[in-house]
Amino acid sequence: MHGLGNDFVVVDAVSRKVFFNKEQIERLSDRNRGVGFDQLLIVEPPLNPEMDFRYRIYNSDGTEVEHCGNGARCFAKFVLDKELTNKSIINVETRKGKMQLRVLNDGQVTVDMGEPSFIPSDLPFTVDKVESIYSLRVSDRNIEITPVSVGNPHAVHKVDSLDDDYVATIGKALESHGRFPHNVNVGFMQILNRSEIRLRVYERGVGETQACGTGACAAVVAGIKQGWLDSNVVAHLNGGDLKIEWQGDGASILMTGPAAKVFEGQIYL
Amino acid sequence: MHGLGNDFVVVDAVSRKVFFNKEQIERLSDRNRGVGFDQLLIVEPPLNPEMDFRYRIYNSDGTEVEHCGNGARCFAKFVLDKELTNKSIINVETRKGKMQLRVLNDGQVTVDMGEPSFIPSDLPFTVDKVESIYSLRVSDRNIEITPVSVGNPHAVHKVDSLDDDYVATIGKALESHGRFPHNVNVGFMQILNRSEIRLRVYERGVGETQACGTGACAAVVAGIKQGWLDSNVVAHLNGGDLKIEWQGDGASILMTGPAAKVFEGQIYL
Repeated sequence: MHGLGNDFVVVDAVSRKVFFNKEQIERLSDRNRGVGFDQLLIVEPPLNPEMDFRYRIYNSDGTEVEHCGNGARCFAKFVLDKELTNKSIINVETRKGKMQLRVLNDGQVTVDMGEPSFIPSDLPFTVDKVESIYSLRVSDRNIEITPVSVGNPHAVHKVDSLDDDYVATIGKALESHGRFPHNVNVGFMQILNRSEIRLRVYERGVGETQACGTGACAAVVAGIKQGWLDSNVVAHLNGGDLKIEWQGDGASILMTGPAAKVFEGQIYL
Repeated sequence: MHGLGNDFVVVDAVSRKVFFNKEQIERLSDRNRGVGFDQLLIVEPPLNPEMDFRYRIYNSDGTEVEHCGNGARCFAKFVLDKELTNKSIINVETRKGKMQLRVLNDGQVTVDMGEPSFIPSDLPFTVDKVESIYSLRVSDRNIEITPVSVGNPHAVHKVDSLDDDYVATIGKALESHGRFPHNVNVGFMQILNRSEIRLRVYERGVGETQACGTGACAAVVAGIKQGWLDSNVVAHLNGGDLKIEWQGDGASILMTGPAAKVFEGQIYL
């Protein structure tokens, strides 16, 4: 399956017990000698009987990770397509806690991404005093950013236009800037109007990606917080569009986007 | 399926008629939004009833191409696994003519790769007079090569050791050297003994690849022709081993290697 080009192997471990070891996950992830994926998603029965499913996520090196917005949409489409549930609101246990997914009539899926935080220590981001916008010295320029955590850390930088060289150079330099001790994901946001942005995201440890779901959330909530955007925004990413809704402090971010099944298969490991 | 890491989607168009247009092939080849492959292999009924199958090969951009040794081994394993034949010697029609595949008891497959040609105009390679080894001026060095065609053009260069920078620099420079009007694949061959070589291949228009089957054939027949190698040679490529046999002028090259099924699936296009 894929969500805006971010691709997943999704495994039904409800109908049948499935366990993968690290070596098998690495083998599965190989795009030539295996199936190939950005992440492996496992659908398990919930531990808590009030929840619908348990959701586990593995990177291609076999490490278990916490969250992926594009994967969550595929998860919801999968459990409906496979008739593992008939609910349109699906409650899921993740490593990070409870997550709610909502399947809309047009097949798009809304993921509750939780509340954002603008508290610098939540990213972490080192500051002398808390401000709204921070100016950082990067590659001989002063770059203005809004730091925001949506589970992972983002620096959102408003730009007038989206230039390849600029994204690559500033993205690389900001990602590992000394004031982000755990490094940071960098969003380059061009505001088209109060409900529409263009966005390119330089992901920490990866480089520019096609469609970073948390990056879209971070950019939109930063823009809303700064008063530049209204509460419902379409973010145009390289890989496609995401709709982001945030009603302000204390509210969860709702991210809506597509999920697509590519093919179905059997593999013997 | 894959042959030494070179991967293929193989489609049974014998049991059921299948037709792909260019746009569908491109979509299938996408490693994130499709299945992903180096080449698409289509197994069709033969036009000539004395043959067993017709074999068509498409690159990921939808263009039909002529031959691929790694793909041919997967083709043979596929038609046996799918019980489309029970023969261990399989005669196949390709765009280039007849091809014979032989499945060995250990599951390895031998492909008859046809006769090599050392005639310069067959590559083409521009010469003043025909010699055995040619010295070319490349990147301020004199590089000795044996030119050989095995359906596609190769320049085989014997080296004492296989160095990353050397392969990249000389490969790139030789690939588009003016004396190869259609460019050339470049093989870097380190001779371990009379029946064993290490080989790295810089493929025309692609760069270094994991396991170029025609490159292994070209290197071994060049080494046999020069008197450096015996008639049965194991070639160690980055992606794995191939066995190459050539009995000299007038004989076909026999290439033997593995073929592996990765997974089986259904896609709706």
